[in-house]
Amino acid sequence: MSDQDLAYDLHVTPAARTSTTRARVLTVERGASRSRSDRLATEEPLEIRVLAGGERRTVAVTMRTPGADFELAAGFLYGEGVVGSREEIGQISYCVDRELSEEQRYNVVNVALRREQLPDLSSLERHFYTTSACGVCGKASIESLQLRCPAPLPAGPVVPAEALFQLPDALRAEQGLFATTGGLHAAALFEPSPGGEMRLLALREDVGRHNALDKLVGWALLQGRLPLHQALVMVSGRASYEIMQKCLAAGAPIVCAVSAPSSLAVDVARAFGMTLVGFLRGERFNVYAGAERIAR
Amino acid sequence: MSDQDLAYDLHVTPAARTSTTRARVLTVERGASRSRSDRLATEEPLEIRVLAGGERRTVAVTMRTPGADFELAAGFLYGEGVVGSREEIGQISYCVDRELSEEQRYNVVNVALRREQLPDLSSLERHFYTTSACGVCGKASIESLQLRCPAPLPAGPVVPAEALFQLPDALRAEQGLFATTGGLHAAALFEPSPGGEMRLLALREDVGRHNALDKLVGWALLQGRLPLHQALVMVSGRASYEIMQKCLAAGAPIVCAVSAPSSLAVDVARAFGMTLVGFLRGERFNVYAGAERIAR
Repeated sequence: MSDQDLAYDLHVTPAARTSTTRARVLTVERGASRSRSDRLATEEPLEIRVLAGGERRTVAVTMRTPGADFELAAGFLYGEGVVGSREEIGQISYCVDRELSEEQRYNVVNVALRREQLPDLSSLERHFYTTSACGVCGKASIESLQLRCPAPLPAGPVVPAEALFQLPDALRAEQGLFATTGGLHAAALFEPSPGGEMRLLALREDVGRHNALDKLVGWALLQGRLPLHQALVMVSGRASYEIMQKCLAAGAPIVCAVSAPSSLAVDVARAFGMTLVGFLRGERFNVYAGAERIAR
Repeated sequence: MSDQDLAYDLHVTPAARTSTTRARVLTVERGASRSRSDRLATEEPLEIRVLAGGERRTVAVTMRTPGADFELAAGFLYGEGVVGSREEIGQISYCVDRELSEEQRYNVVNVALRREQLPDLSSLERHFYTTSACGVCGKASIESLQLRCPAPLPAGPVVPAEALFQLPDALRAEQGLFATTGGLHAAALFEPSPGGEMRLLALREDVGRHNALDKLVGWALLQGRLPLHQALVMVSGRASYEIMQKCLAAGAPIVCAVSAPSSLAVDVARAFGMTLVGFLRGERFNVYAGAERIAR
């Protein structure tokens, strides 16, 4: 796929599909109340369709904040293992079916694959609908990840603790939509500069935390930057199994979260040699796994 | 279903399936660091199976915090429209298949329905895998809700603004797992007492915000308390489309969120006559819809 094929929807998104929505609200404060205009984070469904060999299939409908829709589609497909590299993608575009209204068109993204027929999409179905009797538990979840990501992560960068202290401010400073609405998650990609400081490469926002990370990974995929072996991913919320799974698939060795990790997030980090930092706020953080990548 | 059939797993959950997990962490603070023992919110997959007429089907695998698993299964099935009342449920139990290891058994819940055959589960498949060409947009999402919830909500209670100011503290005081781990979402049910104060009926916690709400609605379903026409639901995070959809299905006329609502959450509230309060913190909140249920 040439760069020209990737007409970034960040720029072509029509005015109707904005990331924030104006609304009239009533603010009540200590008995007094006033009506005022406010901005909300826009939430709209996005349908992701995969096309190949004249066939098409809807693989997901996700509630998301419009903007970076192509990256979201690409990152989602990468995270689910449907797409392994950007070369597999022929084109990404909004659906132009005449049967769709103008508004709906910008909620349907077609990802045309460079292959003769649709890939096996059963792994996507498994998320919601499985007939397997093999049982489920955290251990089995990690084993299934091991099948997909057999190679260990490389050593990756070593980051000074002081550099981590600056990430929350860097994140917040770039969170334009959050500043306007107070209601968006963010995922950001940092890389250590030669001077040891962390440089922000990209940040994506969404009402859904998984979507924000999918947008970020999709950006990296479409930019040809995967795997993210030298990068650090920071998320605004908590670190769950799914967040770690997406970072692992993208090859990111260090994951930092503003809030707490879950037990299974820590298990994934330890099983795959990832560094997991949580409660990164002010000049303080906890390291749950991979402390060797933090210089103290 | 008799109350005896509902052996609440809150009490029968074996020690192995606890809601928190102990982990060794390294805390770094202004250059100093120390290793200590910490508690994490447990995250494990839960497989929900539906049984009827000798058949069984897995309808969901969700990452959740163990505890109140039966309520989670019941609330999930209610929210998805698979179950409409507790009378439709014959029994809820952990899977006892010999093929499952001890650990896995407590991650599989069987919901036996009182009917001759499995219900139509296509609505569940639609979430992730749809071949419909009818387009997707916020308006269409609300129209599909209208098909499911045709009756308008009743007027419901009118709550003094001062009573709302007290909800965040009441929520936090009861969030035992959050206090321990700092990493859980909560959903709580309040009802106005005759004196005008809000009385906490139930609170459920989970690593996933939707799960916390499903557990709460499942509790209400199994207690025979649905619809929640006199109740107020409070959630610890943001109010999204899905949160509003679950509250609407449960008949709750008032929804309060600690954080921001999305545009579509506000649209749902306005379309169905619900009251939506956001940014409820200290002695301050915003009303996005249904201000007539807040007395000032």
